[in-house]
Amino acid sequence: MRIGILTAGGDCPGLNAVIRSVVHRAVVGHGDEVIGFEDGFKGLLDGHFRPLDLNAVSGILARGGTILGSARLERDRLREAAEHCAELSTRYGIDALIPIGGEGTLTAARMLSDAGMPVVGVPKTIDNDISATDRTFGFDTAVGVATEAIDRLKTTAESHQRVMVVEVMGRHAGWIALESGMAGGAHGICLPERHFQVDDLVKMVEERFARGKKFAVICVAEGAHPAEGSMPYAKGEIDQFGHERFQGIGNRLAAELELRLGKEARPVILGHVQRGGTPTAYDRVLATRFGWNAVEAVHRGDFGRMTALRGTEIVMAPLADAVTRLKTVPSDRMYEAESVF
Amino acid sequence: MRIGILTAGGDCPGLNAVIRSVVHRAVVGHGDEVIGFEDGFKGLLDGHFRPLDLNAVSGILARGGTILGSARLERDRLREAAEHCAELSTRYGIDALIPIGGEGTLTAARMLSDAGMPVVGVPKTIDNDISATDRTFGFDTAVGVATEAIDRLKTTAESHQRVMVVEVMGRHAGWIALESGMAGGAHGICLPERHFQVDDLVKMVEERFARGKKFAVICVAEGAHPAEGSMPYAKGEIDQFGHERFQGIGNRLAAELELRLGKEARPVILGHVQRGGTPTAYDRVLATRFGWNAVEAVHRGDFGRMTALRGTEIVMAPLADAVTRLKTVPSDRMYEAESVF
Amino acid sequence: MRIGILTAGGDCPGLNAVIRSVVHRAVVGHGDEVIGFEDGFKGLLDGHFRPLDLNAVSGILARGGTILGSARLERDRLREAAEHCAELSTRYGIDALIPIGGEGTLTAARMLSDAGMPVVGVPKTIDNDISATDRTFGFDTAVGVATEAIDRLKTTAESHQRVMVVEVMGRHAGWIALESGMAGGAHGICLPERHFQVDDLVKMVEERFARGKKFAVICVAEGAHPAEGSMPYAKGEIDQFGHERFQGIGNRLAAELELRLGKEARPVILGHVQRGGTPTAYDRVLATRFGWNAVEAVHRGDFGRMTALRGTEIVMAPLADAVTRLKTVPSDRMYEAESVF
Amino acid sequence: MRIGILTAGGDCPGLNAVIRSVVHRAVVGHGDEVIGFEDGFKGLLDGHFRPLDLNAVSGILARGGTILGSARLERDRLREAAEHCAELSTRYGIDALIPIGGEGTLTAARMLSDAGMPVVGVPKTIDNDISATDRTFGFDTAVGVATEAIDRLKTTAESHQRVMVVEVMGRHAGWIALESGMAGGAHGICLPERHFQVDDLVKMVEERFARGKKFAVICVAEGAHPAEGSMPYAKGEIDQFGHERFQGIGNRLAAELELRLGKEARPVILGHVQRGGTPTAYDRVLATRFGWNAVEAVHRGDFGRMTALRGTEIVMAPLADAVTRLKTVPSDRMYEAESVF
Repeated sequence: MRIGILTAGGDCPGLNAVIRSVVHRAVVGHGDEVIGFEDGFKGLLDGHFRPLDLNAVSGILARGGTILGSARLERDRLREAAEHCAELSTRYGIDALIPIGGEGTLTAARMLSDAGMPVVGVPKTIDNDISATDRTFGFDTAVGVATEAIDRLKTTAESHQRVMVVEVMGRHAGWIALESGMAGGAHGICLPERHFQVDDLVKMVEERFARGKKFAVICVAEGAHPAEGSMPYAKGEIDQFGHERFQGIGNRLAAELELRLGKEARPVILGHVQRGGTPTAYDRVLATRFGWNAVEAVHRGDFGRMTALRGTEIVMAPLADAVTRLKTVPSDRMYEAESVF
Repeated sequence: MRIGILTAGGDCPGLNAVIRSVVHRAVVGHGDEVIGFEDGFKGLLDGHFRPLDLNAVSGILARGGTILGSARLERDRLREAAEHCAELSTRYGIDALIPIGGEGTLTAARMLSDAGMPVVGVPKTIDNDISATDRTFGFDTAVGVATEAIDRLKTTAESHQRVMVVEVMGRHAGWIALESGMAGGAHGICLPERHFQVDDLVKMVEERFARGKKFAVICVAEGAHPAEGSMPYAKGEIDQFGHERFQGIGNRLAAELELRLGKEARPVILGHVQRGGTPTAYDRVLATRFGWNAVEAVHRGDFGRMTALRGTEIVMAPLADAVTRLKTVPSDRMYEAESVF
Repeated sequence: MRIGILTAGGDCPGLNAVIRSVVHRAVVGHGDEVIGFEDGFKGLLDGHFRPLDLNAVSGILARGGTILGSARLERDRLREAAEHCAELSTRYGIDALIPIGGEGTLTAARMLSDAGMPVVGVPKTIDNDISATDRTFGFDTAVGVATEAIDRLKTTAESHQRVMVVEVMGRHAGWIALESGMAGGAHGICLPERHFQVDDLVKMVEERFARGKKFAVICVAEGAHPAEGSMPYAKGEIDQFGHERFQGIGNRLAAELELRLGKEARPVILGHVQRGGTPTAYDRVLATRFGWNAVEAVHRGDFGRMTALRGTEIVMAPLADAVTRLKTVPSDRMYEAESVF
Repeated sequence: MRIGILTAGGDCPGLNAVIRSVVHRAVVGHGDEVIGFEDGFKGLLDGHFRPLDLNAVSGILARGGTILGSARLERDRLREAAEHCAELSTRYGIDALIPIGGEGTLTAARMLSDAGMPVVGVPKTIDNDISATDRTFGFDTAVGVATEAIDRLKTTAESHQRVMVVEVMGRHAGWIALESGMAGGAHGICLPERHFQVDDLVKMVEERFARGKKFAVICVAEGAHPAEGSMPYAKGEIDQFGHERFQGIGNRLAAELELRLGKEARPVILGHVQRGGTPTAYDRVLATRFGWNAVEAVHRGDFGRMTALRGTEIVMAPLADAVTRLKTVPSDRMYEAESVF
């Protein structure tokens, strides 16, 4: 068999582990050939690809990023791909395509699958917001990076009697904020799933100081929103240059808290460090299992589906399930974390 | 309510996170009192305990070990505890006991529960071998430590054209070896669940060298055994002092491989570093959830059971389930890892 | 003897290691008493202090921050302290004061010393900009955190063909940017010591892309400045709210590069994570040696000086030397790093 | 110019950073050619080498080990090299050789230099025992790994009221034991430089337990020796198979302490993990500076010498200085560490 593989969408730790695992299983286990398309679907359309043998994937297991490159998708070109997918399969001589990516990629994968291409998807998102799988690789690494940052910030906050506001990734789903906030012992956690009252945060900090705990760390998802009217001071207007006065909720919340509390409040925006670098052991194992099982699905002819973790098992889920509903943080998980506002 | 808590058996990263979580939930969420017995069941029998308030658990979330201490159990004294458990509950005025521990501890917890004590267990094992729960805290940290060691050993092995044999924890279940071996990309993995043929390992290493990859890393669980007769050279006899000629499978396997391969083979025994130190974010979250849910179970009167992870949920499992069957690595998981021998 | 100790100025990893070392050496080695003033010189003036025995410093060696707290100094109150320093010594019954801090603190220490107080200083600065000592503790940790961030950003930059701009600490001296830039292999390094030409950075990135290396990482000190007129697009005007359009050089440089290069350029502002958390082994050893030698200086009556590293030795340097001249990055060190712009 | 480079002796983190730095400086800075000999002097004698351009060293800065491989030297073949060194230079067309290695390698380098080859050495030793330089790269990484292990062991030791004996590298010089022992806060440190009395260790542990600190961590260099007769129980005889009853001082000391103290004492032998893996930022910077300055020395014609760190400067030291005297831990440094036995 000849299998094509590509990585699309934002990168995330573990992509290389999937690629390596697919190549190992396909080449060693089945005697297949594997080719890798460069820069996601672009490579598929433009004919940029290279053969992937054991040497090509040597030493990449622990490396962040993706050796195949990635690029955001353009919808028009994807439609083009779907229309010509039979022709594409023939052109490259591939019996199956394994696209690794997030919601957008899996939607595209589904289009190709519906158009007749034999596709097995591998889900990928830093944000852990794909509902068909218990967890996605990359998430554990992001939570680890954010937790280490919170650990570090706690000691400096305490020494200076400060409030620290850490902004972590998560535009629509607050999993990274929830788990890094729990793991780091943040005193406040703000999620996209629930509009928070700044009054409540102010009260919490004041009570801590009253109890002699003279610092606080608040972990806020980039997609978190204050309840309407709850941030009267730091308004986030648009200035004459068309820029928001505050770039991002972290900066804005820190400004508001400093004004309301009369204490130093400092924002830290973690940004891209959360998605780069060596994956954790957890993510490497999950990514490796996804890759292995994707190849097995190809050989079973189990197309139009994607690998998913359920409990301790890797199962195959319909591609449709990946994209119908975003997996957000449910109320009972928020309750469990105690400090969600 | 007044809740007693204790940690028993070998320590493992995340114990303090459970203790902190129990105290937070009980004190802040329910207005309970919590007391901590020292050195496991010994403290319960001998009356060594201390009150645990918010200050007592401040700053312990990320700390390894257990602030309550731990001690291995003596069976006789446990029976004594079971016989007098009503009296013990009265003596300390506790409405419930939350013992945190492994198989031995949970067996003891069941004895106490059967004797009438209101008990909610929290499972703990570095080895991840409790069948009633998908994962136990501490395991992820141990795998992380072992994986980092394999990462480090690979570069030094490669530079010197050596075989490295890393012995990791796991007397009866090979989960740590399996997952750190997969995450670290070990070329051979030996588990307690399957007797390995040294011939196969020798062949694998020779093939690697033939392909120009002039090193190999083998990850072996401390409880792994060679198939009978497969280690003719490094026999592991007992010497005149009553000591084994080779302490542990790692030392023995390295000696055998060096003799058979005519290449340097070096053992590294990771030992106790796997069970100490700061827990990973994953383990802190799981431990915190276990603690929170244990307190909720106490308040629901859901006794004789223990917290367990199933998929993404924390559920309550009968204490009996924890101890009836060891969760070992099944064949399909071995197959998935490719390099299990 | 009775020794007072305090930490002042911004916190930095290793402060607790100094405190612990002073207490160990003074109490165990000399049978002294040690008291710790809270929140820097404020505690000295306001009488907030506590005895520090072995138990008080147990377990703090690896902890970031300072158990004594810290606060920025007000000049007026310091003058007050200098005027009453004899009285202060009598009030607390201290035979010597060991203030640990940066330029401001050591200036204050010198004032007190000139006014007659027996003072032994310990220098502290994340920025490594005190000229009397080869290195200061905290710097190695900050460089380590920044280097790990660059390592992580490289993989994500490469996957997306992006330019990453990492802003690290260093208002007046570029040591953190220099060393983390070298250690992380940044393709461009911008320091406060030399005004950089954006044109040169643009050219470097374009040449990299031309050579097939489709990403770049630029490490910029927070105090770095572009040569006048070299950033025509991202001007950093002040908006109607009195806020700079770009907060900090990192954001501004990324905006300029994106416009000039026509490629994605993303800023990452590391901020306070650089100064918090567990110190590296290097910083713990240096801090411990500083503490030990400060106590020995007290017992030798070697006052008005501070501990300093020279080569492999700890020596005593006049407090005056600490504050006369900032240790900035000399040209030959920039040259050595190759990628300084 | 055409420059040859090789790495010899035991590997150590930072070797690749030197190679990369030499190539960058030579190729970009001077327009030189660089060739790398494989497996140390063996490659030089046997003609195994490859050209090293910028692509060849891309991405190796943070990688442990050496891309050129390394092998221990045989004295006879070295003499052969020295005799034919003019011929060797001609054969490869090299204008200079940069050998990177420890005592043995630098001795060989000196032989070649004396025989007329233009040589610039770069010192390398995990053990930090070369007297001509303040520090060698690799040492900081080894100390960091050992310190993290001690950090981890402390929490598990404390939970179980155990004594932990950590054996670290250092056959003749105790720098790793000294600095990791100080950084980790080990309660006892044993060095090759001073024969230790087990009685003193026993007393220290007993006093700790008497003070309520119910654990201890002892950091012992692999080359440390007990004073004669001070280990009556764990004698380390040779058994009938020609094997020592105790392999290494760590195992032996733990056995002796357990017998004498009546408390559990566990050995942990860190072994090869200390010399593998990603170098710390400190080591990457030092290695990079060594490489850069070695190339500059070649272009100045400054042969027969090696790079060395003195204070904050890189200087050139005679190769002879590297090998005349081992840099061991002096008494005043032991005294400073307090816990050296």
